[in-house]
Amino acid sequence: MAVNLAPPDPAALEPIAGVDLGVARAGIRQPGRRDLLLMRLAPGSSVAGVFTQNRFCAAPVILAKRHLAAGWEPRGLVVNTGNANAGTGEDGVARAAAVCAGLARALGCAVEQVLPFSTGVIMEPLPAERILAGLPAAIADLAPDNWGPAAEAIMTTDTVPKAASRRATLSGGEVRVTGIAKGAGMIRPDMATMLGFVATDAAVARADLERLVHAAAARSFNCITVDGDTSTNDAFMLVASGATGVAARSEADLARLGEAIDAVAMQLAQAIVRDAEGATKFVTICVEQGRDTAECRRIAYAIAHSPLVKTAFFASDPNLGRILAAIGYAGIADLDPGGIDLYVDEIRVATGGARDPEYLETQGVAAMRKAEFRLRVVLKRGSAAATVWTCDLSFDYVKINAEYRT
Amino acid sequence: MAVNLAPPDPAALEPIAGVDLGVARAGIRQPGRRDLLLMRLAPGSSVAGVFTQNRFCAAPVILAKRHLAAGWEPRGLVVNTGNANAGTGEDGVARAAAVCAGLARALGCAVEQVLPFSTGVIMEPLPAERILAGLPAAIADLAPDNWGPAAEAIMTTDTVPKAASRRATLSGGEVRVTGIAKGAGMIRPDMATMLGFVATDAAVARADLERLVHAAAARSFNCITVDGDTSTNDAFMLVASGATGVAARSEADLARLGEAIDAVAMQLAQAIVRDAEGATKFVTICVEQGRDTAECRRIAYAIAHSPLVKTAFFASDPNLGRILAAIGYAGIADLDPGGIDLYVDEIRVATGGARDPEYLETQGVAAMRKAEFRLRVVLKRGSAAATVWTCDLSFDYVKINAEYRT
Repeated sequence: MAVNLAPPDPAALEPIAGVDLGVARAGIRQPGRRDLLLMRLAPGSSVAGVFTQNRFCAAPVILAKRHLAAGWEPRGLVVNTGNANAGTGEDGVARAAAVCAGLARALGCAVEQVLPFSTGVIMEPLPAERILAGLPAAIADLAPDNWGPAAEAIMTTDTVPKAASRRATLSGGEVRVTGIAKGAGMIRPDMATMLGFVATDAAVARADLERLVHAAAARSFNCITVDGDTSTNDAFMLVASGATGVAARSEADLARLGEAIDAVAMQLAQAIVRDAEGATKFVTICVEQGRDTAECRRIAYAIAHSPLVKTAFFASDPNLGRILAAIGYAGIADLDPGGIDLYVDEIRVATGGARDPEYLETQGVAAMRKAEFRLRVVLKRGSAAATVWTCDLSFDYVKINAEYRT
Repeated sequence: MAVNLAPPDPAALEPIAGVDLGVARAGIRQPGRRDLLLMRLAPGSSVAGVFTQNRFCAAPVILAKRHLAAGWEPRGLVVNTGNANAGTGEDGVARAAAVCAGLARALGCAVEQVLPFSTGVIMEPLPAERILAGLPAAIADLAPDNWGPAAEAIMTTDTVPKAASRRATLSGGEVRVTGIAKGAGMIRPDMATMLGFVATDAAVARADLERLVHAAAARSFNCITVDGDTSTNDAFMLVASGATGVAARSEADLARLGEAIDAVAMQLAQAIVRDAEGATKFVTICVEQGRDTAECRRIAYAIAHSPLVKTAFFASDPNLGRILAAIGYAGIADLDPGGIDLYVDEIRVATGGARDPEYLETQGVAAMRKAEFRLRVVLKRGSAAATVWTCDLSFDYVKINAEYRT
C-alpha cells in the first residue's frame, strides 16, 4: 500500500556509537509482536526534543518534558506501542512514571534520566506491569546495530518500517546520523510527528542540539499531513552521544551536521506520508511567491486537508476547481485569485485564477495518475515559499480508521 | 442514504404571494433533468443575502453582489445547476451577465434587477446559450406554488429535495416564510451554504432584511459542516415580497418574523447535513461553558472536521481519544484538558479530561449506533456555547467524490 517506499536495508543503517537499542515482545496489546523499544545512551550524551502542541498531550509527553527540563543527562528512552497512555489523567502519569522507575533501576540511573514514549490506542490504561515485565528481554537485546528491529518495534498501523542514515564530515572527522520514525494516522504534526528518534555520534552541546532539532522538525515533520489530526503523543527526539569524540561546535560543523540530520528527518517524515493510512498517492504541495511563509503554509495545508481535493487525488482527477476553492478559503483575506497560477508537475493548468486556455485535461489526468506528483501554487505577491507533503484520501483510509479498534 | 430526511410534502409548502417560481430542463450538463430555476419577484420586493467568503468567489456571486449593491429593486433570480461558473475569470462574469441580460429583457427590467446563481462543476465554461434557450420554458412555468419543483431543480448531488415553511403572526396579520436549499458536498459555509433561498410575503425594509438574513445564517447555514470545504458559490438569499401588505417594522414583529425565518433556515441547513454526501449519521456537536462563542465554535469545528472522528462516527465507534485529541488541537492555547467533560447524548463518557470511571463502552456504542446523536463538550471556563451540525465520513463519501466528474 505504501507509495514508493521500500523497507530500509538493515546493512545501510549505520550504528551510532554510544546508542544501544533493544526490543522485546511485551504483549502490550497483542501477543507475539515487537512492541517495546529501549534506547540506552552512553554517559555524556545529550538529548533535545520537540513535542506535540496538542493541549491533550499524553502522560509520557508530560513526563518526558518534565524529565528533560530537570536538567539530568538522559540515559534511557523507553517506547511502547499498542497504548498511547493519552487521555488517562494523573493515573496515566503515575503508570508512565512506574515504567521510568523500573528502567532507571535496571540501568542504575535516576528516574529523571529516563524518557518515556507511547503510541497506540488512546484513553485506555497503560499496562505498565507488562512493560516492566518486558524490560529484561529488551535489556538483554541491547546492541548498537538494532536500528532495523527498533524501526519495526515502534510501528502501529504502519505497513513499512521507517529508518534512514547519513554521514557528515566535520572538521574533526566523520560522524553518523541514524533515525527511525513511525506514522501512520493522526498525522498533522505541530512541532513533531507521532514518534521520531534520530541519533548522531557527534558531540553536540545541549543548546546547539535544541537548535538542530527545531530546525530539522520545521523542515521535515512539521511539513507533512495525512489527515490534519495532530496527535496527543507526537515527539521527535534528537540524541548526540559524542561517542566518536568528534564535536560539532563551530557554525560550519553544526551546519554540516544539521544537513545530515535534516536529510534523515525529511526522509523519515516523507516515509510517514508514503505509508499513510490508505495512501495511494504521495503529493508534494509547493506554494511560492507568497508574502510570508505563514500564508504559504496556510494555503498548502488548506489544499492538503481538503477531503474533496484528497479524494480527487485518489481518483487521479485533475479537479482544479477544488484546489482553487481550497486556496480561496485558506483565510488569506486580501488574496487576489486573479493573480494565481497553478501547476501539476510542469503543466500549467490555471493562470490568472482561471483554467489555462492551453491546458488539456488529458495532461492533468496523466500527471495525476502517477503515484507521485507535485502541485505548485504561484501567488505572485512576494518571495516566501513553503512545501507540504501529503497523500490522498482513499476507501482504505476510511476502512482502516473505521475498523482500527474493532 | 439521507439521515432521517423525507422529501418535503408539497402540500405543506406555503406559496409566498409576490414570488413566482418556474423551472425548466435546459440540458446544462445532462439532458432531461430540471436544471434551471427562475424566481420572479413582484414590484416592491426587497432582497438581502450573504455570500461565500471564499476568495475564489464564483462569477455569479461577483455579479449578484454587484447588482445588489447597485441599489435597484431585484425582480428576478436565476439559478442553474450543472455548472458553477467558478474559476472562470472575466469570461465567466461575461457569461453570467449575458444570462442576466436575457432574463431582464424577458421580464422587462434592468439587468441590475436580475441576480444570478450557479452550482455544479467548477472551472468549466458556463453554457450561457443553453440557459438563455431554457428561459422561455421557465417563464411559462412561473407560478407561486412551485416551491417543490424549485427545490428539485437546484439539486446536484443531493438525494432529497430540501424545502420548509413556517408562519408567523405579526401585529398586522399572519405572514408566511418558505425556503429551499441544496447541498450536498463542499459544505463548510462561511456566511452561507451552497444555495439557500427563503422568501416571506411580509413587507420588510432592506436594512431590517439584512439583519434578519445575517442572524438566520449565523444560526443555521453557518453552523453546519460536511467536509470543511467552503464553496466558491455559497449564497443564502432572503426575499420579502410584501405582497400581503403585512409589514414587519417594529422590533417585536421583526423578532417574530425572524423566528420563522430562523426555523426555516435551520431546517434547511440541517437537511443539507442529513443529505450530505455519503452521510449515515447526523451528529449535533454542542460545546458549552466556553469563554466566548469563537472558542466554542473552533472546538466544535475541530471535532466536526477530524477525519478520524468522522470515520469513528461512521463505525459507531465511541473512540473518545480521537474526540479529545481534536479538542486538544483546536488551537485554544490555555485550555486545561483536566477541566473537560464529554457526553454522548446523556452518557458522561469523560470527566476531568480522562475516561469517566463509571462509563461502559457498550453505552457509547449503543448511543453512536443511532442515526442521530449529540456530542456535548463542557469546558467549564465560561458561559458561552456553540452548536455545529455535521455527519460522518463514509466509504460513500470517498466514492461519490472520487467519481463526481467521471
